[in-house]
Parts: sequence; structure tokens; C-alpha cells
Amino acid sequence: MGNSSVDKAQLTQRLQELMQEYEAVKAKNLKLDMTRGKPGADQLDLSMDMLAIQDVRGDNGADYRNYGIVDGIPEIKRLFAALMDAEEDEIIVGGNSSLNMMHDVVANALLCGVSEASEPWCKQGKLKFLCPAPGYDRHFAVTEKFGFELITVPMTPTGPDMDMVESLVSSDPQIKGIWSVPKYSNPTGITYSDETVRRFAALRPAAQDFRIFWDNAYCLHDLYDTPDTLLDLLAECKKNGTEDMVYVFMSTSKITFPGSGVAAMATSKKNARYLKGLIGLQTIGPDKLNQLRHARYFGDKAGVLRHMQKHAALIRPKFEAVLEGLERGLGGTGIGSWTRPNGGYFISFDLPGCASRIAKLAGDVGVALTPAGATFPYGRDPQDSNLRIAPTMPSVEELRAATEVFCLCAKIAWTEQQLQK
Amino acid sequence: MGNSSVDKAQLTQRLQELMQEYEAVKAKNLKLDMTRGKPGADQLDLSMDMLAIQDVRGDNGADYRNYGIVDGIPEIKRLFAALMDAEEDEIIVGGNSSLNMMHDVVANALLCGVSEASEPWCKQGKLKFLCPAPGYDRHFAVTEKFGFELITVPMTPTGPDMDMVESLVSSDPQIKGIWSVPKYSNPTGITYSDETVRRFAALRPAAQDFRIFWDNAYCLHDLYDTPDTLLDLLAECKKNGTEDMVYVFMSTSKITFPGSGVAAMATSKKNARYLKGLIGLQTIGPDKLNQLRHARYFGDKAGVLRHMQKHAALIRPKFEAVLEGLERGLGGTGIGSWTRPNGGYFISFDLPGCASRIAKLAGDVGVALTPAGATFPYGRDPQDSNLRIAPTMPSVEELRAATEVFCLCAKIAWTEQQLQK
Repeated sequence: MGNSSVDKAQLTQRLQELMQEYEAVKAKNLKLDMTRGKPGADQLDLSMDMLAIQDVRGDNGADYRNYGIVDGIPEIKRLFAALMDAEEDEIIVGGNSSLNMMHDVVANALLCGVSEASEPWCKQGKLKFLCPAPGYDRHFAVTEKFGFELITVPMTPTGPDMDMVESLVSSDPQIKGIWSVPKYSNPTGITYSDETVRRFAALRPAAQDFRIFWDNAYCLHDLYDTPDTLLDLLAECKKNGTEDMVYVFMSTSKITFPGSGVAAMATSKKNARYLKGLIGLQTIGPDKLNQLRHARYFGDKAGVLRHMQKHAALIRPKFEAVLEGLERGLGGTGIGSWTRPNGGYFISFDLPGCASRIAKLAGDVGVALTPAGATFPYGRDPQDSNLRIAPTMPSVEELRAATEVFCLCAKIAWTEQQLQK
Repeated sequence: MGNSSVDKAQLTQRLQELMQEYEAVKAKNLKLDMTRGKPGADQLDLSMDMLAIQDVRGDNGADYRNYGIVDGIPEIKRLFAALMDAEEDEIIVGGNSSLNMMHDVVANALLCGVSEASEPWCKQGKLKFLCPAPGYDRHFAVTEKFGFELITVPMTPTGPDMDMVESLVSSDPQIKGIWSVPKYSNPTGITYSDETVRRFAALRPAAQDFRIFWDNAYCLHDLYDTPDTLLDLLAECKKNGTEDMVYVFMSTSKITFPGSGVAAMATSKKNARYLKGLIGLQTIGPDKLNQLRHARYFGDKAGVLRHMQKHAALIRPKFEAVLEGLERGLGGTGIGSWTRPNGGYFISFDLPGCASRIAKLAGDVGVALTPAGATFPYGRDPQDSNLRIAPTMPSVEELRAATEVFCLCAKIAWTEQQLQK
């Protein structure tokens, strides 16, 4: 569309008004942070009773203070088996960080291979990894650290572009894996459709040692009682005999304490056996007392689900405050689009060509946003479009103020863009 | 020496008597375990009050339940800096396992190199690692896992054979590191002499990226109030400008709880900065609540030292029970030699050509010993001589019974050997 001089004059006038508003905001000296998906202190308070548990003995009398048990105590394996719909010999329970588990699975694949029979990845030349984007920056950083070429796969409302995934994975043996956050995806909040999951389970990789890293970080993190449902990838893979292709991860980081939770993975029995062997060479075992604390505190899956409802009650108003603010500030203007997730930790905002400018403008008046581009491989969003909004840490009041600033900055960035056309 | 037929007849007679004793022991159906260096339950009870600590905030008000802080909370870094005689920016405090830390330092060196400027080890062809032996089987297993060629360096009463270490390290750039337990060495119990430490600090490796893995696991684990003293390797290296060559490790595994302790390392500021960067890509951070629990419980170095005296009071009688039993059973016979350590977790026994046989005989009557050979690379003791005795886990009564059996088995093995000469 061309800009007539009348349009241009109107836009200039509009920008001046917006900048006056912006200067007024600057004078408020705000200090608000919507950068990272951290639970709020009120959420952390929910689990404080867990810290009072001083039990050190298992149901069978074993002393969990001492060395041993590399794959998790039976009590916690039972709980994760229920949470992950897997059998206990498909489960490995580890330390406090599922990111660390994923990192180590990648590092072990690089140095030792994904099975006894397979060649270490690091001996197979230049490797590639598929990165559905926008996605989780810390996933991408793990594979970037190890020198993989990161290949961006566009995200759609039903998951990664599966035509592209199938085509790449079936033709290129240098592609060794794909990252994914299948439920309430970070940051778009969407959940992979049943068809997407089935197409994952039916992949026929050119690389025998290709692996799906299925980071089900938000599997229990529903905001409403009509949650999204995700098909069970491990079960679908078993139907196809492809279960060795999958590593499923989760943790209690956003259930109990982010720094002091328990991480777990589920995979084929064969993979679990192999990985247990490697982990047995790596460590004297996970912190079993923290595992026991979790097992005793929750008791069973139902206990975890009850606990998650308390989280939802705390963060639902926060998501709604941001969504109402976006609607109020930008609704009907055609400026930007955003997701309305049923769970997870993020709202994803898109405005092509404007993301960096919005983040800069907001940062300059004290509203910290995740850096533009962070949700893409190498931190580069080809369209400079996506911003990730993390509503859980600030208060509802702070979120209202921050979202107002956000909308103002989006309008400024959009108006500037129009003037440059 | 030749055996006359008279000698042989005497030996045969002697063996028959010993085997009668052995059959009598078998009838007792013992079940005793001297295999691993685990603290006893009474030692673990010493730290139970630590589990009652439910503090979650740092001195500066930071909420340690949440994400962040990859290299340890200030409170625990301060404590380890005091324990390790290092500065806080030379310290990284991690999770519950120093073995895991060592493994990961090796894995990171393989995949990313030991510094920004250095080539990943895994791109440098067939690599080698020096293994002073007898030594710690789990050290050797880490480097064996990654395909290093393990080179045995004989242990002497003052530490590894430094002539051999210097000669190998200065001439072969494929040698990338050396394992060491410098104080109350596992299993010999000796402490490296000042000269040995100074020669380590003065190494001039052919490989620019050669590293000393200095596992100071027993630095605080004295049995008597006249403990061995170990020269500070990091300080000695600084005098020579070689501090980048050193990683020092320790943990509270044998201070508080083996499975739920805190591990730490000290190294040059440059190495620490580089490793922090890598760790920041690997994990969301260590369990800060467990770090805080430890920091609050001990308060300072003096608090840890007081605690270690309680450990010593519990395990000193155990070491003495074994040593008295060995003296009673084998003293003056010329059968075997053993160490009388001032600290640590092991007594080391040597009888060339007999170790496997002793372990087999003992195991068959219910006294489990660490497998013969375990203290050597690839589990192969070239002299079949060394057995590691771990006295901490059983009771004094059990140790007396087990040592009696041990001595009997040693006499049988020795007598059989004489008859075969």
C-alpha cells in the first residue's frame, strides 16, 4: 500500500503523541521484568511444607543418605512413571535440572553414541539439529555450544512444520535430532496436534541415530479446567517400533522449586538401560533425599495434580491481566498478534520488523523484555517479529503497568515502521 | 629359594589346617561387606540437624528457591573458599557429586576444549591419561568411558612416580591429564610429599591443554590430631604461573551425606570464568537450597572442622580394629604388607600374585571385598597384588570378624602360592 502525504502527516502527528506518552512513562522510573519464565514467590510458597520432610529411608528401609542408585529411588520412579505414562524401567530420575539431563544426553551421544552399536556423533563430521522456532533459547544454546548447525523449522498452530521436518529428517543423515516443547510450547503456548505427534512417531530418519528431544516441561501446567491434551509420543512410537527414537523430559522445577526440583526422562527400555550405564560412570547418583522429599510430599499423581491447581489459581489472573492489557491497548488496531494459551509460562507476541525496536523502547523506560530474537536459533529472528512475554514473576499490578508500556512501545514501533515505508 | 620336599610337606600340612579353619568359617554364613568407602549410618546421623534447616533466603535477601546462580550461592562459595584456600572467583560450587563435576570437566574439554583458544580434545586423535595406581577405580572409569588410553603410573610412599610423570608429560602431547587423590590417597592412604606437589606445579607439559585433576576428596578427613599435611597445589602453581593447569575438587559427600552433599572445585580465575560459561549452558544452576542448608549448618570452616572430629571419633576405632586384626593375623609372618593411614577411607593391602585368590576365598565365605584389580586401570593389577579394605561401613565387631577371615584367606592364598613354586 502506498502512503499519501496526508497519511504520512497523520502518522507523524500520531507518533508525536505517542512519544509524549512515552516520555511521561519514562518519568515514572519503572522497574518491571517480563523476561524469564520464573514462578512467583507466591507459587514457591505453595511447596514450603515439602522442606519440612526429613525422612531419609525408603519403603524398603534403604538409607537414602548414602551413595548409590543412579536412576532414582523407587518411590520417585513410581511417581514419574505415573506422571509420564511410562513403565518404571523406561524412567530415569536425575538431579534438579531437566536442561542438564538433556545437555548430558546430547554430550553422551556426541562422545559415546546413542547406543552400544552406534558411532559417537562427534566422529560423524558436521552435524545438524532441527530447531522449531520460535522456541526455547536454552535448547538451542545446548546444540550451538557443541557446534551443531541449527536449522530453523517454522512453528505452526499445530506444531512444527511437519512437511519440512519429514523431508529434512528422511533425507539428511547429518541431522541428529530435533528440539520440541510439545505442550504449551515455549513461547507460543500451542500444543502439538494428534496428527503432528503421529507424524513424529512415524518419522523415518536417514540417520539411524536420530533422536527426538521431547521436552514436556509444561505437561501438567494447565491454566483452565479445559486443558489442551497431548498425544503420548512414547506410546505412539511403540505402535511403530520407533520408541528408541524418543527422549521425553519433564521436571518439577515449575511444580515445586525451580532450583531444587527433580528432573526425569522417559525413553525406550533399551535406551534407558544404555543411559543408566553411562550415568553410572558419570555420577555417584542423584540427590535421593530430595527425590524422597518430593515422593513423600505428593504421595501420588493425584497429589501433584491437586498442587498444580493451586499454581493455576495464582498465575491465571496474571495471564489474564496481560491478555486484557494487550486487547485494551492493541485490540482492533491491527498492530501485532498474540497467543492466548491454555497453559504453560508464556504469551507470544508477533509484529514483523518491530520486535527489536519494541524491546529497546520498553527496556529504556524500565520494562525488561526477553531480548528480541532470543526465541530463534543463534538469537536471530529472520523477521524480527517475535517477543516472548513471561507473566508469572511480576504481580498483577506490575503486569498491568508493564503491558500498558508494552502496547505503547508496539504502537510507536509500528508507526515508525509505517513512516519508513 | 627352592622348596625342599620337607618344606613342601610342611606347607601341605599347613594348608590342610588352614582349609579346616576356612570350612569352619563357611559354616558361620557370614555376610560382611568391606567393598566401598561408604560412611556408616552413625556418621550420617551426625548431620541430621542439617535437614531441619528450612531457610530459603540468602544474606542479601535473594530467593534461592528460584532459577539462577550457576556457580554457587555466595554463602557456600565463601565456605568452600575457606576450605580450599582459594579466592571466591576461583571457586565453582555445583551439585551433589564431585565425580560428576570431574566427569563434566573432562566431557567439556573433549567437546569444547579447556579454554576459548584451545581445540576440543576430541579433535586431537587418540588421547592418553595418566593413572597413578593403585588409585580410584571411578576416576579411571571416566577416562576409559571416553576412550582415553590409560597409562599406569606406579604409586610410591610420596605420591606417583614423578620421574615417570615428568618424562611422559613433557614428551607426549597426546597425554591430556592425570588423576590424583593427593591426601590420604585412595586406596593407599599416603599423602603426596611437598616435593611431589612442587614437581606437579612445575610440570612443563608437551600438551598446552594438559590438566591435573586433583581430587582432594579426603582433605579434611583426618583420623588423628597429628594429621598429614598437603602442600597447596594451586598456590604452588601460581608461583610458577601454571595455575591454569589445575582443577582441584572436593565435596561434602563424606562430611554430610554421600548422596546429598555439595561438590566444589577450585582452579585459576581464567579457567573458572570459562567453565562458568559452559556450565551456564548446561544447567539452570545447582540446588541452591542444599547449598544454603550446608552453609547455614556449618557457619564457617571451624564448624566443618569440629564436625570432622566427630567423624574421626566414629571411624578411628574401625581403622584400628582392622589394623589390629591384620597385625594379629599376619604380623611377623611375612605374608602381605599394608598401610596404616592417618586419614581417608581405606587401608591398602598388598600380596603379589594373591589378590584375586584372597578376594575369591573371602567372597565365598560371605566377606565381600572390592574386586582385585579394581584399583588399577582397566581393572587389571599387573602383579595381582593390591586389595582395598574399606573399614567405615561395618561395625567394629563385624570388622574384627571380617579381618580375621581376610587374614585366613591371605594365609591360604600365600601357602597355595608357595606350593606352586
